[in-house]
Parts: sequence; structure tokens; C-alpha cells
Amino acid sequence: MERIGVLTSGGDASGMNACIRAVVRTAVSRGVAVVGIRRGYDGLIRGDAVPMDAESVGGILNRGGTLLYTARSSRFLSREGQQEAVDSLSRLGIEGLVIIGGEGSLRGARALGSDWGVPVVGVPATIDNDVAGTDFAIGFDTAVNVALEAIDKIRDTAASHERVFVIEVMGREVGFIALEVGLAGGAEAILLPEVPVDLDAVSQRIVEGRRRGKTSSIIVVAEGCCSAVEVGRRIHERTGLETRETILGHIQRGGTPTARDRVLAARLGHAAVEQLLQGRRAAMVGVSGSAVQASDIDAAWKIGKTIDLSLYRLAQVLAI
Amino acid sequence: MERIGVLTSGGDASGMNACIRAVVRTAVSRGVAVVGIRRGYDGLIRGDAVPMDAESVGGILNRGGTLLYTARSSRFLSREGQQEAVDSLSRLGIEGLVIIGGEGSLRGARALGSDWGVPVVGVPATIDNDVAGTDFAIGFDTAVNVALEAIDKIRDTAASHERVFVIEVMGREVGFIALEVGLAGGAEAILLPEVPVDLDAVSQRIVEGRRRGKTSSIIVVAEGCCSAVEVGRRIHERTGLETRETILGHIQRGGTPTARDRVLAARLGHAAVEQLLQGRRAAMVGVSGSAVQASDIDAAWKIGKTIDLSLYRLAQVLAI
Amino acid sequence: MERIGVLTSGGDASGMNACIRAVVRTAVSRGVAVVGIRRGYDGLIRGDAVPMDAESVGGILNRGGTLLYTARSSRFLSREGQQEAVDSLSRLGIEGLVIIGGEGSLRGARALGSDWGVPVVGVPATIDNDVAGTDFAIGFDTAVNVALEAIDKIRDTAASHERVFVIEVMGREVGFIALEVGLAGGAEAILLPEVPVDLDAVSQRIVEGRRRGKTSSIIVVAEGCCSAVEVGRRIHERTGLETRETILGHIQRGGTPTARDRVLAARLGHAAVEQLLQGRRAAMVGVSGSAVQASDIDAAWKIGKTIDLSLYRLAQVLAI
Amino acid sequence: MERIGVLTSGGDASGMNACIRAVVRTAVSRGVAVVGIRRGYDGLIRGDAVPMDAESVGGILNRGGTLLYTARSSRFLSREGQQEAVDSLSRLGIEGLVIIGGEGSLRGARALGSDWGVPVVGVPATIDNDVAGTDFAIGFDTAVNVALEAIDKIRDTAASHERVFVIEVMGREVGFIALEVGLAGGAEAILLPEVPVDLDAVSQRIVEGRRRGKTSSIIVVAEGCCSAVEVGRRIHERTGLETRETILGHIQRGGTPTARDRVLAARLGHAAVEQLLQGRRAAMVGVSGSAVQASDIDAAWKIGKTIDLSLYRLAQVLAI
Repeated sequence: MERIGVLTSGGDASGMNACIRAVVRTAVSRGVAVVGIRRGYDGLIRGDAVPMDAESVGGILNRGGTLLYTARSSRFLSREGQQEAVDSLSRLGIEGLVIIGGEGSLRGARALGSDWGVPVVGVPATIDNDVAGTDFAIGFDTAVNVALEAIDKIRDTAASHERVFVIEVMGREVGFIALEVGLAGGAEAILLPEVPVDLDAVSQRIVEGRRRGKTSSIIVVAEGCCSAVEVGRRIHERTGLETRETILGHIQRGGTPTARDRVLAARLGHAAVEQLLQGRRAAMVGVSGSAVQASDIDAAWKIGKTIDLSLYRLAQVLAI
Repeated sequence: MERIGVLTSGGDASGMNACIRAVVRTAVSRGVAVVGIRRGYDGLIRGDAVPMDAESVGGILNRGGTLLYTARSSRFLSREGQQEAVDSLSRLGIEGLVIIGGEGSLRGARALGSDWGVPVVGVPATIDNDVAGTDFAIGFDTAVNVALEAIDKIRDTAASHERVFVIEVMGREVGFIALEVGLAGGAEAILLPEVPVDLDAVSQRIVEGRRRGKTSSIIVVAEGCCSAVEVGRRIHERTGLETRETILGHIQRGGTPTARDRVLAARLGHAAVEQLLQGRRAAMVGVSGSAVQASDIDAAWKIGKTIDLSLYRLAQVLAI
Repeated sequence: MERIGVLTSGGDASGMNACIRAVVRTAVSRGVAVVGIRRGYDGLIRGDAVPMDAESVGGILNRGGTLLYTARSSRFLSREGQQEAVDSLSRLGIEGLVIIGGEGSLRGARALGSDWGVPVVGVPATIDNDVAGTDFAIGFDTAVNVALEAIDKIRDTAASHERVFVIEVMGREVGFIALEVGLAGGAEAILLPEVPVDLDAVSQRIVEGRRRGKTSSIIVVAEGCCSAVEVGRRIHERTGLETRETILGHIQRGGTPTARDRVLAARLGHAAVEQLLQGRRAAMVGVSGSAVQASDIDAAWKIGKTIDLSLYRLAQVLAI
Repeated sequence: MERIGVLTSGGDASGMNACIRAVVRTAVSRGVAVVGIRRGYDGLIRGDAVPMDAESVGGILNRGGTLLYTARSSRFLSREGQQEAVDSLSRLGIEGLVIIGGEGSLRGARALGSDWGVPVVGVPATIDNDVAGTDFAIGFDTAVNVALEAIDKIRDTAASHERVFVIEVMGREVGFIALEVGLAGGAEAILLPEVPVDLDAVSQRIVEGRRRGKTSSIIVVAEGCCSAVEVGRRIHERTGLETRETILGHIQRGGTPTARDRVLAARLGHAAVEQLLQGRRAAMVGVSGSAVQASDIDAAWKIGKTIDLSLYRLAQVLAI
């Protein structure tokens, strides 16, 4: 293999740049040329490509986002779009492809690998962490820490006003961010898509906490579960306490990646290139415990990835 | 004067704790006893008070919020409420009062000082910075830096997706936070209550920026000016570009105070006690340039405090 | 078991407070009383103890250090000291003990458990991460992220002056912090106790990097390997480049714990109490992959814990 | 004036990039071309120059250091060196020069302006803040906040071990950083070049603090005053308390600039270009209270800039 491509796709995640750097420098150290494809699958279809060398990824390790840009592509969902992408790869002389992104992006990678025979390795990168085949996706740890910092700040103001704060965090259909942030932030309640919501019970816990001397209450809500504003309104109705709502929003995507996300990005980017050079096609790389592992790309969704309910119960015990 | 009181009132601001510490320790060093009144004017009416000594304010210098709690009081707006407050002061043996808060809180301080003859000194503390008689209120610098960090994070994701981001910051009726954050964050446009909004011009600037190669655009909107969601919708209509909105919300109130806010809090808290001991009544302290100054408390609103429009024009020049 | 004790010992680590909170609230939720023993084993010998309830650990989740204080005890190394500790436990009515600390502290826990028959469970907490029986010790992730932030800052100034910076990080006899930080920070070289140091090779890499256009070089040195000042002097002799040295020092111990350290602390603190209640004696808890596990306390040192050399080689590939 | 140059010189300071951006974009908006001179006066002598346009300063607003590199030049101290610099300016077609740096850099600017007739405007940028003619130099606020964060972290570990920490901060011959950080960080003592050091008094204060229940003590030492290690040794001799020392070092130079430093950099960079275009030669710009002002460049050192001793006394009152 003499030339490979790399692209980022879907929602951006902090650490994507660190991963691009690892892909490029690993390839260069193995004597393989690298082409950066910009703007995801759409860019691939259009041949929006730049040659990359070791220097081109200098100074990006600590920067959020992706210097290759990212996008969601509807065109690539069709067979015609995929044909164009394959033609484009051939025109660009790209023999293998590393695709960095979330579940949708990895499904695209599977199409290229399984249906069209392109050697492809996917790297899971999504703040939502909802990709199976890996314990952690790139960007999750940073998103959790950014949300946690926000909650620490809001705790100050909540306690000063003795208010109930309802904080909505990202996570699409799953509660990974909300659970981790809620446990780490000492939230008095965590509302997840995976657990039936019982606002009566939540209200009762809050009222009991007040009785014991708690001056603030934080409720963390996963966006895939319910609306923070709605939750605030109902808690107020049930408890009579003052409530406020905050939707953390896009700050969770950005910011300097944490050490953990940078190390994960380095390891997975490196492993992806190694897998390509070993002839893998339609594979993904991930981390299991402290080991990097390669799987068939179907592993990303074959077994649904679920939150650890023991952490949910632990959060309830600790928030008394 | 043998015993003074201190209270925080209105919206909390980072640095209030540092100010309470300065009030208490200055008083202690002058041989004056201090009573902390909790929960603002309502607490004063109810006599919700705790004695404070030098140790009681240890370890709070770097913490957001206020350990005395804060609240808005409707009861205190009435003459009856004020009478109860005065009675309460007398029962508690408090001969002078330091009141830390924003414009509404200082109006309350004026009532106590001018109408009821209570020696009172006000200390301006509000993230909105809309108190005259001082260049800066406690909490403003921290709020600006917190919002700026958020904007730096959002810039990463905006650039990766080539989106227009509309970010709503706090500030009530005034644009101090928005202007400072917009200039410091390199916002492509800043929408303030003080300047007529021209979304056609903003849209044109954004489109021209894209033509010259800009991949992201940040629009900072003051809450007192317009709704981020509305602005996003209209910019999208005019430019066809993808837009996203974020309302930063209550994180702007909290967090560890900056060095500037801690030093300001130390100086103003100290000066407030000195003014009380010198027999001032219905005064406020503030900072002008590098000097601390004392004024009649009316200075807080007599001359409206306005943003510096030259900074607004500068931001436009620099965002090309 | 009706009453348990908890203490922190040895060097402090961020997340110890989160762990104390988890111990106390888990015990309370199980109807078990908790006594906090202050100042480590010395405090235990002296009976320096305070009763703890759910409220006493409120507001500490996000604070570095340990509210129980910590110390190293030489007295406890002797049989007499241990006898006094056992007597003290008996006087205090403590039937089981959770000990939070590093390797030395866990050896003390083993003595109490194996030699004196006290039910004891150890929780690994040390920024150095040099405790076996767990993938990660509490405090390691925070220390790494604090050091990484420092390196990001120094990179700015290094690049502006085109200097070589030698940065010494903590880690006692092992290179865990240095390796993780060096890889995440993109260090041009990492000097570890576990790998022979070859300053000729390092110098050559730096000179070659300069030739290819690199404007800064960062060398991360583990304190257990060599002196930053010495390394700086030798690199300067070999390359003629300007060098500067920084010893990061104690900032690595402190600061708000990361999400990962808080979640780890919550899980291990909870598990330690569960183990005690199940009758374990001389055990430790740890994390393996995503699972919490309990082991005989000897696991903490029986098999030496070693750094992952593949990460070291990866760092070399990526720093080209 | 059709073409101007801009250079950074001396020690780097956070906000230099924001200032370069302001210089470039202001000039561009006025129809004036800009040349970036790299590596300070040495680069000027060698003609190390790059053309700059509005896009070339995109994305640098929030980055520490200086993209133009910086250096100290011994050659420029001689008349021959200055002659070469003047020749170089003429060859590059540069008709006016903005020089961003500390006191030494502004002396160089004076030489070019007064002795050689080059239109030059200096912008004060130095973390030490030891330039007169302005209340604040670019980089000072960031350095203070970085040092303050470090002190907050060290306070955690100091309190956990009940130790005395001696922390050395930068500042060359003056105590600006130390005083600001010491006051904001609640240091129990601040040692400055401007105030005679009395370690007996400091020791006594610390011992008294312990008696009243303080569990940690922080001593902030300015590098221009004395050695942290020496201070630690002597405090230990006098008090018997455990002491530790940390030299914060180069992290103080770097990092994302604060809002205040970015706004200051924007205002001063803009004003410098305006002054050049108005025909000023050998001038400097600075900030006085909330106003930007221009002065003869001699103002930078004519009246020595001194610390505010009332802040020193305030810090002593508050640290009881």
C-alpha cells in the first residue's frame, strides 16, 4: 500500500486532530503517503483532498475540532454517491482509508469496505460514546470534563440562591455523558433515556434533601430523555422550589482534548494504519480495558452498547 | 462603632466571597465585631444572622457564589419591610451595614441610609457591570472570562463544521459582557441593546468573510438585545448558511473568581469598612482607574453607565 | 459491623475527598456509622477522630487534597506503633477500616489486617500510579491533566523563542506520569527510569527536527530518572540550542479532580465498604478495564506494575 | 505611509498574537500594507520578513506566545547593528514600525525613532508589568491568573499536609506579579524586592496562624527578591514546620490570554497604528484608567513604575 487517505465525518469530537496526527505520522514512518480528505464523505465524492506530511499535523495535538473539517452527507447514503466516492478514491490513487467518526460514519465505512471492496478502517470518535466495539470513543472524556466544569460552576450559583438547577447535556439517544457527569458532579438526580423517569420520586428526594440541610440541587438530564425546561417546570409544580434550566449545548464538543482523549486518539490512529497495512478491510479499532483491539466493523453496532446501570444506582446512593 | 453587619443581595457574582472575607477581616483587625446576615434583605427582616470571625471566612477566597446566600426581596420594597429591617438591625446590635450587590441592592442600601438613617456602605457586585460610580463591579471580569472560554470552545466546533454560531450571553439591559466578550473572542458580529441591530449588514459581512476564506462565524448576542434563536433563524434565511445557537446561561455567574475580581473584592470590601468607621452613611465604594473611591450612593445610578462605543467600532475593524 | 473508620495516608492525591464521600455515604446508606481518622496512621495512634455523617462530606466532591489531612508515620512502622493503633481502634469502637493511599499506606493496611486481624480494605490513591492490583490509582488522571496543561502553556513560549524545554514531572521511581504526559503533549523526547537514557540520540532527534522546520522541542523527564537541569545542560552542550528547565512540582497533586478520578473514587470507595461488610480483611479494591475488582492486599505490590513500553515507542513515532 | 512593519521582541507575553492581529487588521482597514518581521531586532537586521494580510492573523487571537517569534538581540545594541536594521527597513520599503515588547525592546524602539529618525510606536508587552507610561502591559493579567491557578492547586496539598509552601513567581526586579498573586491568593506572606524581608516576622505570623487553627500557609516570593529554597529553609529553622518550595517558572508566560489581555492588546495594537499614521515617531501607547493614551517613548522608563504599597498592607490585613 503506497498511499492512504484519512477523513473525519459526522459531529466533531475533541481529539480528532490528535488522531489525524497519529494517522499521518504513523503512515509517514512506514513510508506510506497520506492524503487528507476534507469535509467528510461529501468531500470524498468531490475529491476535496490535500496531501499531508509530518509537518502538516504539527501544532494541532491540543486543538479541538478537526482541521480536515467535517460534515454529514446525504448523497453518500445512495449507491450513486458511493460509486462516486469509489471513483474519487481511484482518481486520487488512494489504496486504503481511515475514517474517523461516530456510528453513522462507521456505517459509511462499512459500505465502502464490504460493498465496494475498499480497504477501510474506522476509528470511533463521538462525544456520545454510543459506538460498540470499544469501551470509549474519542471525544467522550473531554465532553464529560467540559460538562463537569460547567456543573461545578452552576453548583456555586445554585447554592447561593438555594435553587434547583436542571442541566441538559448532550448524548443523542443515550445517557453516557449524563451518567458520567451526574455521578462525577454529585447530581441529586440523573434523568436518562435508559431509565424510566419518575419526577415524583425525584421531587421527594429533593424535598427530603432540603429538610436535611441541602441548599442546592442539581438534576442532570440527557438530551435524549426529556427537556430541561419541562423538567424544571414540573419539579417546581411538585416542590414549590425555585428552578432554573441550562442547556449546555455545543461547548461540550470543543476545547482542548484531555490527556485521556489524546492518548486514545494516538493509539487508535496508529492502530488503524497498522490494520490497513496488514490488509484489513471493513475493520474498526477500539480499546478494551487497557488494550487496543481490532474488530470487524460490524462490531460497532452489532451488540448495542449500554450504560452501566450499577453506576446509576451508585449515583443515587452517593447523592443522599 | 462596635458591631457591623454584612449581607449579599440580588444575583450572585463571583468574588462576593472574597469581598465578605475582606469585610470581616478588616473589621476584625480594627476591633469591630461582624455579623453575617444571610439571604439578603429578606434575611435581614427575619434576623437570619450568624456571628463571623477571621476563621469563618477561611478557605472561601477562591469559591464562586456567596456563603451568606442571596435572594431578591419584595417585602423590603415596602415601608413596612424596611421598618422591620431597621428593627432587626437594632435587635442584633448592628450599628453599620455593608451591602454587596447590584443596582437593586444598592437602591435598598440607599433607602436604609437616607430614609432610615442607618450607616450603610454599598459595594457594587454584579456580573452585568451596570452600576455607575465604579469602572468595574465585582464578578464582571470572571463572567467575561467564563463566557470567553466557552466561545473559544465553540469556535473549534464552528470551524470544523463551517457553521455560523449565535451565542447569547448575560447582561440584562446592557451590553457590557457581550461587548467585552465579543471583542476578546474575535466575534464576527456583536449585537447589543445600545446599538440598532442590522441583520442585513451582519449577513453581508458573514458572506463576504466566507468569500475571503473564513470557515466560521461567531455572533455574540446580549440577552437584553434579542433572542439568539431568532437571530440564527434570520441569518440562515439571509445567507443560506448553517446556523446553531447556544445560550450560555448560568455558568457565567459561577466559577473561581479571576485575580482581578479577587483583588477588586479585597479592595472594595476593605474600603467599605473604612468608610463605615469614618461615619459615612448612604455611601458606596468603587474603583476609578487604579484608585478606590467613595461616593454618595446615588452615584450608582445618577449618571447612567454606558458602554464604550469605540470598543464596538474596534471590534468591527478587527473582525474583518 | 456497626462502625467503620476511614483515613487517608501518604502523599495526597486529587479525588481523595470524593472517595471519602463515597465511603461515608455508602456506609450511612447501609446503616453503618463512620468515624473519620485524621492525619493518617499517626492520627490513628493518637485517636485523632471525628464522627462523620452524610452532610459532613457535602461540598467536597470537587476539591483537591483531603479533608481528613494526611501524613507519613514513622511510628506506625514499629510493632509498638501498630499495637497503639489497634488499641486506638478498639477504644473508638471501630470494627473495620478503609485506608486510602499509595503503596506505603497499603503496606500499613496489610500489617493491620494480616498481623493484627483488623478488617481492613485498602483503596489505591496516588498520583504516581505505582500500585499494582488496579489499572489506575485515584489522582493519576488529574495529575496527568494538570501536567499536560502546563506543557501546553510552555509549548507556546518554547515555540516563540525556538527553545528546547526540559520539563520534570513527578512519579517517584516510575514513569507513569511522564509517559502519559509526554505522549499526550507530543514531547519530542521522554526520559523514564524504565528506559536507558541516550542523550546523544535525543540530541540528534532534536537537531533533525529543527532541520525539518520544528521551532520548539519539549523533553519530559520523570523525576525518578534524571535531573531536568542536568539534562538541559547536556542537551545544550550537544546541540548548541538554547535550553530552559521547569520542575512542575506540587501543582500536580492538587486541583479539582477530573471526571475520571471522581468516578473512580466513587466506585472504589463504595466497593471498599461493601468488601468490609462482606467480611473481607486485608483486601484491596481496584479497577480492571471497566470492572471494579477486589483482591488480597498483597496484589498491590506482588507483581510489579510496569509502564506499557508500546506507548513509549508510539510516542517516538508520533514525535517525528 | 504605505507600508509598516511589526515585530515582537524580548520575553514573550500572552496577548502578543492578539496585538499583532490588531496591528495587521487596523492597517489593512486603512489601506496600509504590513510586513511581519520575525525574531525581533535580530530578524530585522537580517531582513527576516513576511508579508501579512487579514487572513494571516486568523485563528491566533486565543494563542499564547507570538507567531512572529521573539529573541533578545545583542547585535542591535551597537550602532553598527542599528545601522543594519535601518538599512533593512529601507530595503523592505517599511516606512513605520510597531514594536511589541518590554522595557528593553522599547529602548530599542527609542533608538530607532530618536537616533535614526524611523517612525516607531512601542506597545508595552511584558508579564513583569515593569514598563511605565501604562497602567498595565500586555501579558501581565494572564501571568497573574496562571500563577493564581497554580497557587489554588498548591493550597489543596498544603492544607492536606499542614505544610508551609514557598512559591516563587516571576517578575524580574519588581514585585508586580507577586503582589497581585499574593493578594488574590490569600498568601500568608508576600516577599517583594520593594519591601525589606523580615523572616522573623513572617515566621511569627505563621506560628500564630497555626495557633488559631490555620492548617496551611502560602508564602509568595518574587524572583527578584529572594530564593524560594532559601526562604523555605529559614522558615523551617525558625518554626520547625514542614516546608516545601515550588518555582512556577515558564508556565507563567504561556497559555491562552485572558479577556483583559486580549482587549488591551486589541486597543493598543490599534492605537499604535493610528499613532504611526498620524506621524508619531518614538512614541508609545498605553492605558491609563479606562483610556488609551499615547506618550513619548521615554515615558516607559522616565518615571520608575512602582508597586502600590497599600495593596501590600491590605494583603497583610486580610491574611490574618
